[in-house]
Amino acid sequence: MIKKKQKNVVVIGGGTGVFVVLTSLKNSPFHLSAIISMADSGGSTGILREEFGILPPGDVRRALIALSRSDNKILAKLFNYRFNEGYFLDGHSFGNLFLTALERVVGDFQKAILEAGRILNISGEVIPVTLENVNLVAQLKNGQVVYGEAAIDQRKNKKDASVAIKKVWLQPKAKINPLAQKAILKADAIIVGPGDLYTSIIPNFLVEGVKEAVIKSKAKKIFITNIMTKKGETDKFTTADFIKIMEKYLGKKVFDYILINNKKPDTKRLKKYKEEGAEFVKIVLTKDHEKNYQMIKEDLLRARGLLRHDPKKLKNVLEKILL
Amino acid sequence: MIKKKQKNVVVIGGGTGVFVVLTSLKNSPFHLSAIISMADSGGSTGILREEFGILPPGDVRRALIALSRSDNKILAKLFNYRFNEGYFLDGHSFGNLFLTALERVVGDFQKAILEAGRILNISGEVIPVTLENVNLVAQLKNGQVVYGEAAIDQRKNKKDASVAIKKVWLQPKAKINPLAQKAILKADAIIVGPGDLYTSIIPNFLVEGVKEAVIKSKAKKIFITNIMTKKGETDKFTTADFIKIMEKYLGKKVFDYILINNKKPDTKRLKKYKEEGAEFVKIVLTKDHEKNYQMIKEDLLRARGLLRHDPKKLKNVLEKILL
Repeated sequence: MIKKKQKNVVVIGGGTGVFVVLTSLKNSPFHLSAIISMADSGGSTGILREEFGILPPGDVRRALIALSRSDNKILAKLFNYRFNEGYFLDGHSFGNLFLTALERVVGDFQKAILEAGRILNISGEVIPVTLENVNLVAQLKNGQVVYGEAAIDQRKNKKDASVAIKKVWLQPKAKINPLAQKAILKADAIIVGPGDLYTSIIPNFLVEGVKEAVIKSKAKKIFITNIMTKKGETDKFTTADFIKIMEKYLGKKVFDYILINNKKPDTKRLKKYKEEGAEFVKIVLTKDHEKNYQMIKEDLLRARGLLRHDPKKLKNVLEKILL
Repeated sequence: MIKKKQKNVVVIGGGTGVFVVLTSLKNSPFHLSAIISMADSGGSTGILREEFGILPPGDVRRALIALSRSDNKILAKLFNYRFNEGYFLDGHSFGNLFLTALERVVGDFQKAILEAGRILNISGEVIPVTLENVNLVAQLKNGQVVYGEAAIDQRKNKKDASVAIKKVWLQPKAKINPLAQKAILKADAIIVGPGDLYTSIIPNFLVEGVKEAVIKSKAKKIFITNIMTKKGETDKFTTADFIKIMEKYLGKKVFDYILINNKKPDTKRLKKYKEEGAEFVKIVLTKDHEKNYQMIKEDLLRARGLLRHDPKKLKNVLEKILL
């Protein structure tokens, strides 16, 4: 029997979207590399960035937990624990403190991720998209400029949330982490999304060298559109809008597959989201889309709880493409 | 070849003294149980006790690190890391935060120590002397009452530091942790000290049931006297004074062996200590001492650095008694 070479699958993103994709593929026969946006500046992560000058630990932490093997349940729980008391610690994620202290002990962030991965016994690897300290900046359609991922993300609470984002960029400019480049170039498949479009997904492609590496890579390229819009970021977006913005930042016809959830949640589940200004992403596609991409429309929705992708459904459809 | 039953050695104390004894015996063929005082209320530990109502993590952390096996060096380093920056984290030991978060995740302090021990891959076990929340109280010879281990410890910086301690007690009273009792009763040897007499050693024996268990235990009982006096706590103490206070709180003739360092450090090494009001503990012994105990006077001093017990020298003399 000839043992097949394990396929290399790269997942690019940030936030909870990467967590869902990694969780869905953790037990599949792939070598997983999670390439994580370094633009996050909110909450516990933002405080630690500011006070310690480290790269943002939050999304790295989520990816590490997703890849942690099952015999380490308490450690994974601990890593995900958020202090909700204590004057000094309230709101801090323990995993973020762990990565911060580890960075100080071993000397750099990438080594710290490697060590944390060992301690958490992860399968696969977690790679910061860049090792440079960057901030995300957005210009709105009314000309206003918003500095920092947290500020852009928090627009959902502001009056001007309805003003759409015109463009985003990184400040200062940053180069791709060589490990991320290597992983992209040798990938058999690259999965982008789901996730907050401007604050978790695109920041990866604003790093110099990422777009070029993805285009150059011979991998199958898959874009997973979001289930719900996000106030202040993707208001009223249809699938066509998601694809349009990706094409703007990454180029046309880069993706081979577009994965779309076609299961609309019932009114009851949509209610809470509606109150927060989030709506179901309508499927709108043009002839060009159908020509340029293989469109896969499936029920990818969790049966209950948050309106997110269901890891098992995602696994099934991704394995069909990847295996 | 008949495999001998591994001997059970119990080390009772707190602070750096326990760390030194555990380090010295870590690679000896004993099963080590460290019974740790729960009176500590200083620094990072004190803040966490106050804000989270947990038992004091500091001395537990030190004991866990001492028992951690060598393949886990980075994790042990991380556990010992102290944040020295950041408005919110400055001064906190990462290991203390680790134990605090773990306590919240698993539900109680003893389970948290057990899990931390697994994660750090320790040999032996670390046992809080009591599972009740206690505070140490001292009455001075002038009648003044000082509340809390930290306040007693910090007397070294006060003008009244020369007023000797008359007695100490716990408030509220506390009962022995059943695991500590079990370890003491089945011990082949019990080692007490070195360490701050009133703030690290005696608080263990103020817990109801500890003195009784130690007396009842058939173990060889060894008391290690300190190398240096401590301002505000054991000023001008000779070995006879250390023994007298232990007899006061634990009863006469409980110990079989008294281990005394007889190597006086040179003037240069003593200078910094003198400035802090600490002096070399002079060997003063009575006929009663020689009659009641086996006195072992040896060079136990580290060749350089802090005036502490040398783990290798300690190991040699302890193994002679214990093996």
